[in-house]
This record gives sequence, structure tokens and C-alpha cells, in this order.
Amino acid sequence: MAKVGIRDVAKAAQVSVTTVSHALSDAHGSRVNAATRDHVRAVAEELGYAPNRLASGLRNQRSYLLGMVNDQIATTPFAGEMILGAQDAAYERGWLLMMLDTASDPELEKKQINTLLQHQVDGIVYAKMYHQRIATPTELAGVPTVLLDATSDLGSISSVVPDEVAAARTAVRTLIDAGHRTIGFINNIDDIPATHGRFQGYVEALGEAGIDFDPALVATAESRAEGGRIAAQHLLSLPTRPTALFCFSDRMAMGAYQAAGSLGMTIPHDLSVIGIDNLELIAEGLWPGLTTVALPHYGMGRWAVTQLLDEIEASGDEEPVHMIFDCPLVQRGSVAPPLHI
Amino acid sequence: MAKVGIRDVAKAAQVSVTTVSHALSDAHGSRVNAATRDHVRAVAEELGYAPNRLASGLRNQRSYLLGMVNDQIATTPFAGEMILGAQDAAYERGWLLMMLDTASDPELEKKQINTLLQHQVDGIVYAKMYHQRIATPTELAGVPTVLLDATSDLGSISSVVPDEVAAARTAVRTLIDAGHRTIGFINNIDDIPATHGRFQGYVEALGEAGIDFDPALVATAESRAEGGRIAAQHLLSLPTRPTALFCFSDRMAMGAYQAAGSLGMTIPHDLSVIGIDNLELIAEGLWPGLTTVALPHYGMGRWAVTQLLDEIEASGDEEPVHMIFDCPLVQRGSVAPPLHI
Repeated sequence: MAKVGIRDVAKAAQVSVTTVSHALSDAHGSRVNAATRDHVRAVAEELGYAPNRLASGLRNQRSYLLGMVNDQIATTPFAGEMILGAQDAAYERGWLLMMLDTASDPELEKKQINTLLQHQVDGIVYAKMYHQRIATPTELAGVPTVLLDATSDLGSISSVVPDEVAAARTAVRTLIDAGHRTIGFINNIDDIPATHGRFQGYVEALGEAGIDFDPALVATAESRAEGGRIAAQHLLSLPTRPTALFCFSDRMAMGAYQAAGSLGMTIPHDLSVIGIDNLELIAEGLWPGLTTVALPHYGMGRWAVTQLLDEIEASGDEEPVHMIFDCPLVQRGSVAPPLHI
Repeated sequence: MAKVGIRDVAKAAQVSVTTVSHALSDAHGSRVNAATRDHVRAVAEELGYAPNRLASGLRNQRSYLLGMVNDQIATTPFAGEMILGAQDAAYERGWLLMMLDTASDPELEKKQINTLLQHQVDGIVYAKMYHQRIATPTELAGVPTVLLDATSDLGSISSVVPDEVAAARTAVRTLIDAGHRTIGFINNIDDIPATHGRFQGYVEALGEAGIDFDPALVATAESRAEGGRIAAQHLLSLPTRPTALFCFSDRMAMGAYQAAGSLGMTIPHDLSVIGIDNLELIAEGLWPGLTTVALPHYGMGRWAVTQLLDEIEASGDEEPVHMIFDCPLVQRGSVAPPLHI
């Protein structure tokens, strides 16, 4: 992410991003004069900005259009930053990203993929709103494709997903580092990779700290505020009352706040809470702000398009890459040492 | 909305939505056999389902592709249902919707509109993530366009926006009907139609009920939870303490809940709260659930595409329509009679 981007070049050259894009490519015609082009190229070289497309000799066979097939990413509030990351990465290299939303309807999806192919997209990002294992649609066989927030039965297609196990380990270790030893886990009930991976991460992080795993400290519910509230009320009424709760999602953490409030407990003084998502509406909206582990949607979106363009430019010679993305801790105000310390 | 849709026909005919679409159009080739086609058409006629496209004789000049130019709708959690409504309306009439997200970058927007035009979309929905007044991009001059969640200097382009004044009146009247007379208003600070329209609606609803407008009961802040919390703490510490708060947005209402909690007040027993948005993450996540006035994103999205297709089929002979959409009340648990009643 700390790489030089097109916006850095634009700023340094004191021109617009579009001018940089035009100056560094001829995909969209000669819309900048020679002096500007030379200036921008010099600045880009000085900064070490080198879009791979310049290295490719295949420019003229391209539509410079990528397709993005979403299930419900655009219409739900959970993973929209994947679109932003994908789009930024495409635009920085001179491509445009055209999105279709399938509303999770397989027939509509088929039709949409065919439409993208008819419009000769150079490649497709096939994206899911949450991490899942899928059967890749057969329509995608003939076109360079990268899976975003999904893995496939087909090992031949590159993919990117978050590291669910490590995300949970980060969350639980944050609580352990603050001094907690009795840590409840409010898990989701869905049979999806996140549920299993985060459980594994919870158990591993406890084990590394020499804390015995106690199944009584794990409660499960639907991943919504209400589920989190009910599960938290249960855990907080145990004889071995946890001093901290690790919640499967920020929505469940919102419910944990409500449970704490209803029991007269103050966060983080009486109870520490940590989530996973970094869904800003919730994590920033809660009071105190929710410390959480971010699902790296923007970064995964960027990675998917970057990988796709690399594969397009390598003309199929590259090995598929199965990327597992780190999930960073976002500290706000919901974790503190336990009272008895 | 209670109209017969393609899904009703599919269900009654016991075939898939795609089969209905194929049977009722020849846009996508003859992919159903004659018996099925006749069966589906008979069911559609029986149910009174008549997509306008059947009435149009201009089928063959169409790409059956619509473009949707979004600012940040797909990447932020606020108005994604506009995309869903637009897409459903398009699909029901045999069109596909291709989306581009401009990230609110005017140069990227220009390029994207041109790309859509190169790909011969039959029309464009130009959509904003919140209601605003805009200058219509000149690139849209030559193509049928409908503005979604925006109005324009150009009266010649159809548009749809929510009725901000009526939305506020509905909210405030709900509080008045519950018995409240001292009603605080937590307004946004941005100079946008919603800020002014909702203020007007608040004043009007009070006036109709014979309640004097008291400027001291209006507090303004950024439309986020924190702004709502600080504004609510201020209003709830006034000598003329309001028994109910009307909040500009669900996010601000989330902050009002926090303020109530910090003052030891229970919602709705000690304080009624109502919002505007029906942002489900918040409105359903809060405890008790937030009674709010919905921004009709799904319906506006449907309307925009329906109007666009009508205009495309009328070949420019139709008058532009400037639609103002009703905003329905969504009752949950945050409004009750005031204590002193």
C-alpha cells in the first residue's frame, strides 16, 4: 500500500490524475501535449511509478475494460470498499471497471457474465460480499478471472480472502495483552469459513497464552446486534464471568454493548469488547468507539484487480496466486485492563 | 409496488424468471420452446402482466443495456437499495444494468460516461448517494437520462428525489400523535436539500398541531452518532427538556440513544426518539429498535429505471417527470407517550 500511486505522481507533477493516466498510456488517445507528457513521465520515473502496462507490448488488443461481478456488495452495507479498491487499482493502470450486481440470482449472474464477455472485457473480478468457498461459474472458463473474497474448487483461478484465523488471533491477543484471562467468544452460527476460522484463532490464541479453553465461554447466535446482545447477556451472567468479549462481528459487538448497558456495566471499565469487521457505521458510531480487527476490503479489492491485470498482461503464463490477506487491528476505546488487575 | 411483477408470472407459470423474460421478449433469441412460450404468455396475460416493451415496435435498435453512473452508492453503506430497485426494474423488462462508480471524481465520471456511450447503452441512470441539486454532466446531453436522488438545473431531464418536507412532517406528527408537545430537533449542518426540507417539515408539523416553534429546541451537528450524542446531551439538559427527539438521521438517533443512556434515561419510557433513513444496520441494531421514516431507496431506484425505459420506448416524445417520493414510517420501539401523560 505504501507503493507510489498515480495520485502521488499527479501531485508531484501538479497535474490531474487523468492527465497522468493519459501521459503514461496511449490507450485513450493523445489527449496531452508532448511537453506535459514528458514532464509527467519524468516525474513518474523519478518517483519510481511504473504501471505494468507500460511494460506490456500488447496494448492494442485490449478493451481496457474490466468486469466486476458482485453478488450483493453494491447493495448491502458490508464490503463496498472492495469495489473502491478494485476501481482505484484499475483506474491507476488505465482500465475502467464495469460492475454488474447479480442479487445472488444464478440465472441473472449467467446472463450478466455473458453480457460482460460480449462487451469484450479483458478480465473479470468475481466478488462475494463475505468470504466463502464457491463453485466457479462455467461462463468464466474462457476469460482471465480473479476471485475476490472467495476461494474455489478450481485451483487454477487466483483468489484473495482474509486470514480468518489470524484475525481472531489478533483480536484475542489484544485482549490477553491488556491483561484478560477470562475471555468470552460470541461466534456466528453460519457454516462459513469465518465461523470456523475465527473459532480456531480464538482457541489458538488462548493456547499460546497458556489459558485453558473453556467451552462454556463460547456462545453462538445470528451475527446481528440482537444475537450479540442475547449471547453477551448469557456469558455475563455465568459464575465465571468473562472480563472481555471477543465478538464475531461488529454487529454482535453492538449487541454486547447493549447487554453491558442493561447490566449496568461500563465499557471498557467493567468489560472490554473487541469485534471483527471495522464496519465504520457501527465501530465509529458506538460509544466508546469499538476496537476491532478490520476486514481489509479495500486492500483485497486492489489486490484482485492488480493480480488480474498482471495475469492479463502475462497472457496466461503466470501461475495462479491464492492470497490470504492480513487483517489489521483498529484501536478505538473498547479495550482496557480488567478491573481486578 | 403491488403491481404484478415478473416473479409473480414465473411462480404462476411454474418456470424461472429467465424463462418468463425469454418467453415475453425476443431480445435474447428464441431460447424457449413454443409450448412454454405460449403457456407463459397466457399466464402473463391472465395476471395482467404487460411489460411495456411488448408494446414497443423498436426492439431491434436496442442494446438492452442501461448504464448506471453512481457517485459512491456502491461503496458506502447508505443507499445501496437504489441499485437493487434499479436493477430489478431493468431485469423485469429484459434489460441489464451496468454500473460504474465515479468515486465522486469528475474526470473519472466523464470517462465512465463516455465508456458507457461507446458501449451503446440505451439510457443512463445518473445517481447520487444522497439527495442533492446538481449540474448535469454535459456528456449526458445525447442519451436518455434519469436523475436518481438528484434534481438538476435542466428541467428537461426526469428526476426522482424523496419528499424531505413530508418525511419530517411524518416523523414529527408521529411524536405529536403519541402525545408529545416538547419535541427537540437534532438537525444536520450540511447545506443540502435534506437539511432545509426537514427543518421546514418540523416547523410545519408543529404549527399544524398548534405548538409554538422554539428555536432553543433545535440543535445542529454533523450527521454522525457523535454529533447526535452531543446535540442530544445539550437538548436534554435544557430547562424545557424535550420529551421526544426528532433526529435528522438514524446515525444521529444512535447518538441520541447514547446520550439518553448516559443520563440514565430509558427509551422509549423516559424519552422518545425518531430518525430518518431506515438504515437497517442501525435502526434494527439499536435496542429498542428505532422508529424511523424510510428513505425509499428501493422504490426510487425502480422508478428511475421504469421512467427511463418509458422514455426510451417513447423515443423522446414524453414530457420529463419530476417525481417526489413519499417516505413511509417504519415503526419499531422508540416512540411512546411522554411520562407526564
